[in-house]
Amino acid sequence: MDANKKLVANEAVKEIKDGMTVGLGSGSTVKFMLEALGERVKEGLEIVGVPTSHQTAKLAKELGIPLADFSNVDGIDIAIDGADEVDPHLNLLKGGGGYLVREKIVDILAKRLIIIVDETKIVDYLGTYSLPIEVVPFGWETTRSRIAEFGCAPQLRQKDGEVFISDNGNYLLDCDFKIIHDPAKLHDDLKALVGVVETGLFINMADVVMIGHAGMVDVLTK
Amino acid sequence: MDANKKLVANEAVKEIKDGMTVGLGSGSTVKFMLEALGERVKEGLEIVGVPTSHQTAKLAKELGIPLADFSNVDGIDIAIDGADEVDPHLNLLKGGGGYLVREKIVDILAKRLIIIVDETKIVDYLGTYSLPIEVVPFGWETTRSRIAEFGCAPQLRQKDGEVFISDNGNYLLDCDFKIIHDPAKLHDDLKALVGVVETGLFINMADVVMIGHAGMVDVLTK
Repeated sequence: MDANKKLVANEAVKEIKDGMTVGLGSGSTVKFMLEALGERVKEGLEIVGVPTSHQTAKLAKELGIPLADFSNVDGIDIAIDGADEVDPHLNLLKGGGGYLVREKIVDILAKRLIIIVDETKIVDYLGTYSLPIEVVPFGWETTRSRIAEFGCAPQLRQKDGEVFISDNGNYLLDCDFKIIHDPAKLHDDLKALVGVVETGLFINMADVVMIGHAGMVDVLTK
Repeated sequence: MDANKKLVANEAVKEIKDGMTVGLGSGSTVKFMLEALGERVKEGLEIVGVPTSHQTAKLAKELGIPLADFSNVDGIDIAIDGADEVDPHLNLLKGGGGYLVREKIVDILAKRLIIIVDETKIVDYLGTYSLPIEVVPFGWETTRSRIAEFGCAPQLRQKDGEVFISDNGNYLLDCDFKIIHDPAKLHDDLKALVGVVETGLFINMADVVMIGHAGMVDVLTK
């Protein structure tokens, strides 16, 4: 599995050219991408990275990848990110790591979004993996009730026995929908709710999905 | 002006009955409502209040109004809140005070929402007053750019020379739309944007608007 992640990470890094501002996603496959990118930077590639999480920022620094603060960049040429699930329409379910808002803000600004996954992330329908929904802490119980009406039993995410707090100071509700038949509509309906900050559904955002499996890289494009 | 606010505040408090859980809004007219409610509580009215801001909580405590934490209430029987603008369809523009998310979460849960204003808040179209939009701090500049495409020049709210931080830890962009022809659509479009937490447009939420003017109270209902 790691071999497939490495393979697809290396393939994605080939798309990064001199002078680019690069959105750096989060997660286990992105870690391999950062390692490959760090090698290219050592060889002389001149880019600047925009991290989507503290973990990514920390690892990128250790690997010698120059970073810019998001507020100081004019645009993002390419973003490379992972996903928890990818459907045949290139819609994504993301946010198991808890960075869905920052990832979405960076990914949506990117002229080109490349998603790197191994074959285990490819699904016919999104929803087997729980959908994370970021909510304002005040009144989260009522927000949870309104989310539950869409057909799930939202669980407040915990970490080490405490309520998990997102990098934006919010809570995450993990929602086990099982099968999401219309992810675009579900996202729109959930995002419209008072108290909902963002959902982990990334609709019509990915330009390319690179899939590592059995020593090969498959490429899906829009 | 204060006389009209007091008048309408007193009128609204008459709607509060023994045993009710009451959402307590924010702002200058609500202050008069709290004073009137405090008097009724001293006279023996038994209610529990749910405040929408620290200021309201502080004043309510001083006035002897019993308070409950929002997470401990099952529902809200009635909420009484102010507004910066009210249109003929009872749509509201709110949030000059910076508490729009909490106000909206409380107001939406209320079985009955009564808005109290003086006649200066009644408009043909919302939008003369700047519309506050609460946004995630990360990447707020790009969120501002996407909001600006709807026809305004959003200003980052400042207080005492510092960026104003909402009670949810977010920023507020004040957006001078001048005239908002379709507030429901504008709210939906803005709320759908990545990075937008909530807008100050309260659409189809008010059940009653009480308007104090020239020593009288006018009542608009849905």
